[in-house]
Amino acid sequence: MTKAIPNLLVNGLPAGAIPADDRGLRYGDGVFETIKVCDGAPEFWSRHLQRLNLGAERLRIGAPAAATLAEEAARLLKKPCDGVLRIRLTRGSGAGYGHEPCPRPTRILELDADPAHPKEASTQGVRVRLLEMRLGQNPALAGIKHMNRLEQVLAAQELTEPEIAEGLMLDGDGHVIEGTRTNVFFLSDGVLVTPALDKAGVAGILREVVLEEAKRLEYKVEIRPVRPEEAFAAQECFLTNSLIHLWPVRELEDRAYAIGACTRALARNVAARALTERGLALR
Amino acid sequence: MTKAIPNLLVNGLPAGAIPADDRGLRYGDGVFETIKVCDGAPEFWSRHLQRLNLGAERLRIGAPAAATLAEEAARLLKKPCDGVLRIRLTRGSGAGYGHEPCPRPTRILELDADPAHPKEASTQGVRVRLLEMRLGQNPALAGIKHMNRLEQVLAAQELTEPEIAEGLMLDGDGHVIEGTRTNVFFLSDGVLVTPALDKAGVAGILREVVLEEAKRLEYKVEIRPVRPEEAFAAQECFLTNSLIHLWPVRELEDRAYAIGACTRALARNVAARALTERGLALR
Repeated sequence: MTKAIPNLLVNGLPAGAIPADDRGLRYGDGVFETIKVCDGAPEFWSRHLQRLNLGAERLRIGAPAAATLAEEAARLLKKPCDGVLRIRLTRGSGAGYGHEPCPRPTRILELDADPAHPKEASTQGVRVRLLEMRLGQNPALAGIKHMNRLEQVLAAQELTEPEIAEGLMLDGDGHVIEGTRTNVFFLSDGVLVTPALDKAGVAGILREVVLEEAKRLEYKVEIRPVRPEEAFAAQECFLTNSLIHLWPVRELEDRAYAIGACTRALARNVAARALTERGLALR
Repeated sequence: MTKAIPNLLVNGLPAGAIPADDRGLRYGDGVFETIKVCDGAPEFWSRHLQRLNLGAERLRIGAPAAATLAEEAARLLKKPCDGVLRIRLTRGSGAGYGHEPCPRPTRILELDADPAHPKEASTQGVRVRLLEMRLGQNPALAGIKHMNRLEQVLAAQELTEPEIAEGLMLDGDGHVIEGTRTNVFFLSDGVLVTPALDKAGVAGILREVVLEEAKRLEYKVEIRPVRPEEAFAAQECFLTNSLIHLWPVRELEDRAYAIGACTRALARNVAARALTERGLALR
């Protein structure tokens, strides 16, 4: 029915399809990673693998060996290219919420083009909205990059104006948590603040890198609940994810921010770190 | 890679696999129905289709015509059999939370064996636990049968004792919402009570049928938040879903319930309604 796609491996074999009874398809029963590839080298490979393992452990899905993933990634990345390497790991085939203790997981590696990003977003900053769609709270699922992403899909439907690059989402308590596909940071009275993600949200790889770099630059850092009022009152604001690295926010609704020294310093350091942490651990 | 399965149709064609880039697999971006089949006839067909359409509308996925689904179901149900007919509808292929206005949805129809249920559950009742796993609240997703089911998958992992047939889940506010795969009813001081599902939970087809039959039997019915204390203090308790119809609960944790007149009358009426509302609307 479906031809093998040259850039896709299912459990190590070239494929274009997965069994229709896969639990990833039935229930979103799995985790994934979205990895930036520059000149054939994946960025922050070890960190992505670590988060994949953490998510798999939380859902009690058996994670593949790091060497297996690295070997398969290397096969997809034979030719130098820029793009996105997606790793998906599902619990495997089956029906019913309950499952055998150790089903055979499905792993999917896929090399794709990097989606188009607005020009000059990194240098000029982007405009951002507060979205209506809220994030449900569940500590058991918070932080990991699982495949239950309907809230993000519905939130993205609110982003109809092309000049708005991203939308921020609140949780049920009205706290700012993250963008639909980014984490968010604020410089608030000299302190770098990012929302706590213990009840909702995805703990991004670039968020982790920014937190490390902020400490290295000796910024005071706080990870805690953030109210929209504080977001609007902040002096600087920026977004992060693995594909964009860091985008300054120049406008949140009607509030304009300067692209300040903190945002610039972190953008610079993060770009340098991406260069340093490039490539498969194998090589 | 994957052979066509005789009992599976993807967009009307016999298949065993779906494209690996399907958004159902990436994000759980879809809805599904689980329909009981008796002697080749699906039960409550029109109701299942109505809920599928409601879910598709909520997620803004284009629903297939009822005639298409009925025709495809009829092809799978050529030979009289008992089993489960599963319908899945995803937004189709694509990557990124945002999507084109009208992607081509994927519909999957699948005829499967009915999973084994504990013997005498319908007549003797079942034992039930309160589970630790909570349900996140999101009014945008509440009620519909979408494919983001990790909470149920994790909850089902708590059900390790074979003598416990189901587990009840609370939401973040501590209200009883539903079982992992059932709705729940209580007879509380002569009133039939079932949890409100405006913030979490799936509004089951059998729940709807029970509510109709309860009114016909002139029970007072209330749909509202239910605290665990009220659940424990109730005189009767039962569970419903499309495959089991109605199971009396004889024990919730240490609390024993009688299988009373209300439960028995509703079980009888629901079974009769299942006989009446059997078959494809086509026929």
